[in-house]
Amino acid sequence: MSSGLFPDDPDETRIEILEATYAALREHGYADLTIDRIGEHFTKSTSLIYHHYEGKDELLLDFLSFLLEDAQGRSVEDEHDADATDRLERVFEHVFTQDATEEELAFQRAMVGMRAQATTDDEYRTHFTEHDRVFRDQLAAIVRDGIAEGVFREVDPVQVATMLHTMLSGAMATQVTSNVDLSSMQAEVEAYVESRLLVDGR
Amino acid sequence: MSSGLFPDDPDETRIEILEATYAALREHGYADLTIDRIGEHFTKSTSLIYHHYEGKDELLLDFLSFLLEDAQGRSVEDEHDADATDRLERVFEHVFTQDATEEELAFQRAMVGMRAQATTDDEYRTHFTEHDRVFRDQLAAIVRDGIAEGVFREVDPVQVATMLHTMLSGAMATQVTSNVDLSSMQAEVEAYVESRLLVDGR
Repeated sequence: MSSGLFPDDPDETRIEILEATYAALREHGYADLTIDRIGEHFTKSTSLIYHHYEGKDELLLDFLSFLLEDAQGRSVEDEHDADATDRLERVFEHVFTQDATEEELAFQRAMVGMRAQATTDDEYRTHFTEHDRVFRDQLAAIVRDGIAEGVFREVDPVQVATMLHTMLSGAMATQVTSNVDLSSMQAEVEAYVESRLLVDGR
Repeated sequence: MSSGLFPDDPDETRIEILEATYAALREHGYADLTIDRIGEHFTKSTSLIYHHYEGKDELLLDFLSFLLEDAQGRSVEDEHDADATDRLERVFEHVFTQDATEEELAFQRAMVGMRAQATTDDEYRTHFTEHDRVFRDQLAAIVRDGIAEGVFREVDPVQVATMLHTMLSGAMATQVTSNVDLSSMQAEVEAYVESRLLVDGR
């Protein structure tokens, strides 16, 4: 614990709280999450969490922003190491993997719970608007590069990216709210890319 | 009120409870719904609701089944009055209308809340599995008819229907959880149908 003269690094404490939040969200989901349950995954005193955040939703919104910044950082690193078709394929593999761990599925369930909160809470809605914009823009950048590479047709990159993002987020939500068979989705998304985007597609 | 000798028609009471549920869901959303709040929209005594249902979730699951049966009935009526491209277009118009009433949007918000419940509650998950299966099968029937009419290519109807349904449910969820611009979605869904399905498409 800090002595007052040498206070905890506030950034380090924040990261530790966010790590505990991630663990507690996977265990309890959004609806059943409480600060005390986050505290059970936090090595320091739960009162320190209350010192940093007014309540569960302020903490979760900070957590979601942190994740989104992290996703933006990783996207910039990836940008120039593969061509557009490979980059799209990598996104599809990530969403449609049959090998999702229980940890990943548990987090996906919690994300669906937090997104549902956006139906009635403007702060969540503002967050998910930014979330959707970031991922749509990443997909639009890939489509734009594919057109520049001469591999994709001259489509509207934002329109195609809006479709891809809507479809992928629909698939992720369906995976954790329904047992309907999605095993053919990846093949059909690839058929869409082939018929709609590829210059030498059907 | 019933005298005991001439009890209320149980079916009629059920329908009145389900109508009150629909109104209360639109007003309060899923998370904030209670039987008492449903009672505020019910002309008879709230205790009659408790007599019919053990609790909020048993009532909502009956409500959801009722809606699904209704949707199946309407689909059968529609079946043979238009060709496959017109029937698909009608589905798209319904989902992407810019003229959704506040009542429709409020209900869509409540549906997103109930679907999120399926991440942690097996009975909701069973319902939404059936829900997804019904709508996917309706879309597959349209694709199958389009192939039989010679208008659509020889695609796998269930695979294409899975894609259409995932995309449409993704769009409906995004509409009520984010302000991201979806105005180009309908054009892109139509481009998908043209490039992937139409025999005389690009």
